Amino acid sequence: MKKIKLAYVGGGSKEWAYVFMNDLALAEDLGGEIALYDIDLEAAKLNQTLGRMINNHPETKSQWDYEVYADLDSALQGADFVAISILPGTFQEMESDVHAPEAYGIYQTVGDTTGPGGVLRSMRTVPIYEEFARAIKRNCPSAWVLNFTNPMSICVQTLYDVFPEIKAFGCCHEVFHTQNFLCRVLFELKGVNVTREEIFTDVAGINHFTWVTEAKYQDIDLLGLLKEFMEKFPEGCNERGAVDAYRTDPFQSANLVKLDLFRRYGVLGAAGDRHLVEFMNPNWYLKDPEMIASFKFARTSVSLRIAKRERRIQNLLSLRDGKSPLEVKKSTEEAVDLIQALLGRKKIVSNVNLPNQGQMPGFPQGAIVETNAVFSHDSVRPVVSKPLPPLVQAMVLNHLYNLETLYQGIKTRDLQAIFRAFLQQPLCANLRIEEAKALFRTMIEATKAYLEPYFAVNSF
Amino acid sequence: MKKIKLAYVGGGSKEWAYVFMNDLALAEDLGGEIALYDIDLEAAKLNQTLGRMINNHPETKSQWDYEVYADLDSALQGADFVAISILPGTFQEMESDVHAPEAYGIYQTVGDTTGPGGVLRSMRTVPIYEEFARAIKRNCPSAWVLNFTNPMSICVQTLYDVFPEIKAFGCCHEVFHTQNFLCRVLFELKGVNVTREEIFTDVAGINHFTWVTEAKYQDIDLLGLLKEFMEKFPEGCNERGAVDAYRTDPFQSANLVKLDLFRRYGVLGAAGDRHLVEFMNPNWYLKDPEMIASFKFARTSVSLRIAKRERRIQNLLSLRDGKSPLEVKKSTEEAVDLIQALLGRKKIVSNVNLPNQGQMPGFPQGAIVETNAVFSHDSVRPVVSKPLPPLVQAMVLNHLYNLETLYQGIKTRDLQAIFRAFLQQPLCANLRIEEAKALFRTMIEATKAYLEPYFAVNSF
Amino acid sequence: MKKIKLAYVGGGSKEWAYVFMNDLALAEDLGGEIALYDIDLEAAKLNQTLGRMINNHPETKSQWDYEVYADLDSALQGADFVAISILPGTFQEMESDVHAPEAYGIYQTVGDTTGPGGVLRSMRTVPIYEEFARAIKRNCPSAWVLNFTNPMSICVQTLYDVFPEIKAFGCCHEVFHTQNFLCRVLFELKGVNVTREEIFTDVAGINHFTWVTEAKYQDIDLLGLLKEFMEKFPEGCNERGAVDAYRTDPFQSANLVKLDLFRRYGVLGAAGDRHLVEFMNPNWYLKDPEMIASFKFARTSVSLRIAKRERRIQNLLSLRDGKSPLEVKKSTEEAVDLIQALLGRKKIVSNVNLPNQGQMPGFPQGAIVETNAVFSHDSVRPVVSKPLPPLVQAMVLNHLYNLETLYQGIKTRDLQAIFRAFLQQPLCANLRIEEAKALFRTMIEATKAYLEPYFAVNSF
Amino acid sequence: MKKIKLAYVGGGSKEWAYVFMNDLALAEDLGGEIALYDIDLEAAKLNQTLGRMINNHPETKSQWDYEVYADLDSALQGADFVAISILPGTFQEMESDVHAPEAYGIYQTVGDTTGPGGVLRSMRTVPIYEEFARAIKRNCPSAWVLNFTNPMSICVQTLYDVFPEIKAFGCCHEVFHTQNFLCRVLFELKGVNVTREEIFTDVAGINHFTWVTEAKYQDIDLLGLLKEFMEKFPEGCNERGAVDAYRTDPFQSANLVKLDLFRRYGVLGAAGDRHLVEFMNPNWYLKDPEMIASFKFARTSVSLRIAKRERRIQNLLSLRDGKSPLEVKKSTEEAVDLIQALLGRKKIVSNVNLPNQGQMPGFPQGAIVETNAVFSHDSVRPVVSKPLPPLVQAMVLNHLYNLETLYQGIKTRDLQAIFRAFLQQPLCANLRIEEAKALFRTMIEATKAYLEPYFAVNSF
Repeated sequence: MKKIKLAYVGGGSKEWAYVFMNDLALAEDLGGEIALYDIDLEAAKLNQTLGRMINNHPETKSQWDYEVYADLDSALQGADFVAISILPGTFQEMESDVHAPEAYGIYQTVGDTTGPGGVLRSMRTVPIYEEFARAIKRNCPSAWVLNFTNPMSICVQTLYDVFPEIKAFGCCHEVFHTQNFLCRVLFELKGVNVTREEIFTDVAGINHFTWVTEAKYQDIDLLGLLKEFMEKFPEGCNERGAVDAYRTDPFQSANLVKLDLFRRYGVLGAAGDRHLVEFMNPNWYLKDPEMIASFKFARTSVSLRIAKRERRIQNLLSLRDGKSPLEVKKSTEEAVDLIQALLGRKKIVSNVNLPNQGQMPGFPQGAIVETNAVFSHDSVRPVVSKPLPPLVQAMVLNHLYNLETLYQGIKTRDLQAIFRAFLQQPLCANLRIEEAKALFRTMIEATKAYLEPYFAVNSF
Repeated sequence: MKKIKLAYVGGGSKEWAYVFMNDLALAEDLGGEIALYDIDLEAAKLNQTLGRMINNHPETKSQWDYEVYADLDSALQGADFVAISILPGTFQEMESDVHAPEAYGIYQTVGDTTGPGGVLRSMRTVPIYEEFARAIKRNCPSAWVLNFTNPMSICVQTLYDVFPEIKAFGCCHEVFHTQNFLCRVLFELKGVNVTREEIFTDVAGINHFTWVTEAKYQDIDLLGLLKEFMEKFPEGCNERGAVDAYRTDPFQSANLVKLDLFRRYGVLGAAGDRHLVEFMNPNWYLKDPEMIASFKFARTSVSLRIAKRERRIQNLLSLRDGKSPLEVKKSTEEAVDLIQALLGRKKIVSNVNLPNQGQMPGFPQGAIVETNAVFSHDSVRPVVSKPLPPLVQAMVLNHLYNLETLYQGIKTRDLQAIFRAFLQQPLCANLRIEEAKALFRTMIEATKAYLEPYFAVNSF
Repeated sequence: MKKIKLAYVGGGSKEWAYVFMNDLALAEDLGGEIALYDIDLEAAKLNQTLGRMINNHPETKSQWDYEVYADLDSALQGADFVAISILPGTFQEMESDVHAPEAYGIYQTVGDTTGPGGVLRSMRTVPIYEEFARAIKRNCPSAWVLNFTNPMSICVQTLYDVFPEIKAFGCCHEVFHTQNFLCRVLFELKGVNVTREEIFTDVAGINHFTWVTEAKYQDIDLLGLLKEFMEKFPEGCNERGAVDAYRTDPFQSANLVKLDLFRRYGVLGAAGDRHLVEFMNPNWYLKDPEMIASFKFARTSVSLRIAKRERRIQNLLSLRDGKSPLEVKKSTEEAVDLIQALLGRKKIVSNVNLPNQGQMPGFPQGAIVETNAVFSHDSVRPVVSKPLPPLVQAMVLNHLYNLETLYQGIKTRDLQAIFRAFLQQPLCANLRIEEAKALFRTMIEATKAYLEPYFAVNSF
Repeated sequence: MKKIKLAYVGGGSKEWAYVFMNDLALAEDLGGEIALYDIDLEAAKLNQTLGRMINNHPETKSQWDYEVYADLDSALQGADFVAISILPGTFQEMESDVHAPEAYGIYQTVGDTTGPGGVLRSMRTVPIYEEFARAIKRNCPSAWVLNFTNPMSICVQTLYDVFPEIKAFGCCHEVFHTQNFLCRVLFELKGVNVTREEIFTDVAGINHFTWVTEAKYQDIDLLGLLKEFMEKFPEGCNERGAVDAYRTDPFQSANLVKLDLFRRYGVLGAAGDRHLVEFMNPNWYLKDPEMIASFKFARTSVSLRIAKRERRIQNLLSLRDGKSPLEVKKSTEEAVDLIQALLGRKKIVSNVNLPNQGQMPGFPQGAIVETNAVFSHDSVRPVVSKPLPPLVQAMVLNHLYNLETLYQGIKTRDLQAIFRAFLQQPLCANLRIEEAKALFRTMIEATKAYLEPYFAVNSF
């Protein structure tokens, strides 16, 4: 049995930590230490308690020493793996990120990746990631670093820019849902019932704006089935449930945007509709609440997120206190599988965010892109993706150059440069320049508690 | 004295032909045949008459045989140089190109390069240029081809796509005006009075959306003077005359857009403000007539163009009939100088539109770009331009991929593909997808007389 | 059970066919037709007989219809897979290829890939492959084409140049031996006993001149072990047997060249020493027989090949006649596994020859390179390789530009261009220009029976 | 009149300084200080004396203050231009560089750029240039730096690597001779008598291994004349004098190598034959003295260089002492013209060594290459060159990767890495690895006086 040390930065997580501890418990021939680090020490301790309870569960295969650290360096010291999943700021900042732009007619469905919300969140996140990168360099330079935090691209970019030799990559499960959707298409048209691991997709793009350029089950061309599928399901189709489930659960959708994009470009958007729409002209799918409803997806409000987390905390406390029974079961997440692959126990081909080193020809070298990669013995090698159609390539490149400008602006603490990237967000396209300035000013003011350590907020 | 044959396609021109014949008359040690070809034979004959009158003028240095041809092949047969300057369609089509989009809140200032007008004009132009390219290949494959027709980029692209060995380039004087503006800046701040030939500018971009990335007079950094210049001229400055001349002559402006872009990006747009604005977010400078006026530039209406041409025709007839005296004088155009350079009489470094072969690193190979080139003995070699700032690069790339999609769509006569390029025009950014479709339908319907030979107009 | 048609071009093979039929017999859930095509019809029929005998063997899992075709089109018609493994010309031509250069002090160890022998063999092969490509386009344009013929690179290049949409790739097992060698290293130094499938290697280069840039078993860096390994085995090490087995079997070696190259460049040549040496300065490892012996590898003479084949034919006839017992067993070849992967039954990451589409950044697009690729459902996607050291990159690039010149020369039947590529072969480096011409003349004369249909042999 | 400060590093030069001072004396509207710096202070003072004498000559147009500095920083302080032309080491080291390899059958014709001599000279030069770059950064970061020292490529590479913002370029007149040769071709075949400034050549490659890819006079294709020229002049042609002048002056040749290469590759080597041959297979033109003589070029021995310099010193002293009359006349060098161009008085298109930024597509970014560039107001912009034939590209790339390895080796003071670059020099191609090692050891030992401050010479 292999013993490893895994440092979990953001180990006080209410959502993903429990899922991850479950998957770790079911790992074969693996064990060691999980070093929980969080600025919310109590939250980390709760996960420690739950982790230890999981250790005692009869289904559990692997034992883990859950340790809580108050300082980052100790948590990272000698780690073999580092998982990072943090929330930069609080729901108060997120409230501004997501909802402040609504006063200007900007309806963000997610607000954490791109658009005004993505820019502001990046401003809070990058300075923290600069410190993470330096700490990893100091304490565990050979560790594999798995990033789960959004905005994904700029987090991974920060890690590589500060510590170029880092072995980091970014994991995101949005592509998985699109793969599930393709399995549904296969089932509906061919009666074949398979899981996403049983099909092959080639993906290319950037996180949350990734595209399936080829999809195959055996010799069946899954993208080739979509025309017939759209005729059969003119009202759309939700791979997770009812076609109108988005009304109560904004994380679901009818995939109508995805299909409309496929009709236009011939490639399939590989993220939830709520993500895809934020990267494009807002007058196409996000002009107003009616248009949004007509395409059968929904916005995630921060109040809903707050309520959801509150329920989650109650669930965790209930588990801790023995009021609800603790079950141990495998999730659909891949993190533990990727760790096993990096330990040399299997080869996995999956989508991942990495600096471009040839996997997306025609895109700038070093830009953070999302494509497939081969995960195996202590190695992650990207797979060359098929080319995107020119108009999609143009949209992706626009975001890459925006991101580059945004990153350099944050790195140099230059609010004017950051504003230039803000102005050129597709989601800000309907604003006059002066309106964009006013909105940016409002948003940095509303979140200044987290910005002032780094930026001269009042100077803008 | 060198004798050449120059075929002038569009030789019935009312504007540029007379200017060109003047410059030809003043060329040193040069002569030969000017083969005028035009679908308007009478117009070509008028120019022939004027040309012969110029031959007899005492200031004239070079004699030219002006011949009118009714068919293209004869005109091109054995030519050493070909100049192409045509109007695809009539003012009736242009009326639709420029003004139909106004019903959708799209205020085009020029309407012949990009945006909805540029797309429609391209649809009329590319099929004609396909024939030009084939005819050049048949009749004068070694000739140098100077293109003056807009939309410049797609005309040059068509020539190279149909006949890859062609020796063609596209000439545009928009950069000259920006150079004149920089001379004005130099004069205002340093008291130095020079002409544009006496400064150096590095340029990069695409036609009408070109950028000066470096400008020097001796060791004075002209871009470095702009901050002070903007402070001194907060109301703008028109290198051709009064700052509000745009009110009566829409070809002039106060350069406020150009300066605002410089403030944002640190590079200077190298075309008239009326051109630059059409390539960017319409909410920045073109949202409504008030915003346009506030930036001190104006729209060129087609009625104004018609009136202008009418006056021009009267002038030419008056010259022909001896009612007004014929003068022969050098223009500020470069065409004859470029011809002299290609004949090996001088070296010229000037801006030109050519397929990218390295002059704009980071841009697709083969895309038509505008940079400097060295013109000399039978050779045009592009000069590597300095890099554009990332956000400007993103805007230029967006147009290049749009153009690629548009060109392939026209080449394959595929209205759906053309519409995709139409939809993604920045000038169409404020439209919903259905609105864009309706506008496109209106515009192809309005200009169908010139489209139906090539496209199944009713099928869209 | 999936039924497929596999066309086997060169199906009269004495070596590989029997191995392949064994692997096919043991394939799971697979069956269909094996269409044997060979210019030696009798040889194909012998394989048909043997194939049918294998069908009757108790260990056999899959039944195959072995059909012999006298014409290529019928064999290919409707095929799902095409395997090509031919010998261009006879042993008489090979005798000239391999041994004629010895008169000039050129000691070829293989003589079928690069060097004078490789050039001559290419001249015989490319015209045949042009016809194969056209026939595949006509008869089975969607088939997957597996090439096994040498010279590998130029065969694959011909297929893609003639039919750009072809789904072809080239398979070679040389890398496997190097992987076995690395397993041996792991065993000798760490006592861990694994097979090549259990380690990971990143490979980059061209066929027979491929390099391992990274090799890992779990988190053990296998290349990092080589320094100690070289100290422990100063006399070299043969992963297949005794260190001096090369004395009797020239296909084996002590890997001393491979290790010497690793010492110099820090990456490990991933082909047999006998292949590697032919791509480099002949004064390093091939100056004379003594130097060759001192590095413990050997030359494969054609007489030895003839004797070997004679024995092989006797073995096959003996099997056919029931004089020796027929066994059915899995080989170490991968062809059937790759077919299973392409049918969607597994994912395989293995080395393969494909046009460069990003997998080797810094190398020309479209050049045939060998790297890893992911084989899965109807898809082969190359993996981006790690960069080669500059001096190795220079050697590989030299061969790629040589190959490009050679290919264009053969394609245009231009003996002068072919000679330019011949002259610049590293193996010809010790020749004066006139000597190179004389040798080339001798070699085309000696093999003219196979060249005259395509080249004006006497004109050189 | 413009006043400038020009720092002349190596200002004690016996050859180029006097020529340069003549050109400076004849410059229009220019004057200022020439800051002479040399480790041989007396030599600098001699040039100062001569410079002042030139000031007093009646033909002189510009007055210059010639100052001698004993330390580099003072000389550079505030300079507008820096010219660097030094001899790294003495003739004693050069004796080893050029002649030591002869014992191994390596006949170097120049021995200062590539091959064993070039490697050793680079080892002495790069550490000095590292200091130059740092001193320029300290004292005159905006100065234009003109390098004339060989090995040109690695000198320019060092300057840019140490101080990336430097405004440096490398000047070499070898291309001029080839242009003169082309003028001779034009005269011989067409009777047209022009100077090199009146033709156009496109050049591409690296210093001393540059190639003319296109040459035109008006519309006459000069490369197209070479076939006829070779027939007319089978014995070759020396643009500077008699065809066998090489017998007494090894700087001349009959251009037979250049023409042989043109016959093979279709492009014309743009350096003296004595330079070109050192970059290629030594068995083609340098196998032995007889072969060298048969191609009508010669080796420059160091004893000849010593004798030549001795005569030169006598001439200078004779001028100083008034024993021979001082004349002031314009040379054929371009340095002063380039300075005038950079001051904005003219535009010049000429060949220059610069980091690749697009001017040679398909070659590594940042590698030092030689192409045309436009020199104008405070700006040097490279011109995109036409592609080289694949086999020439391969030879040039080989040298670029060699240079990269050599430079990194010297930068990190790593003798093993340097040896790897030494071994892979084409001029070392006939050596066994052990012979190459022995020769390298001999050469570093012979020149260790200049190497020991930087390298652990005995450790190899």
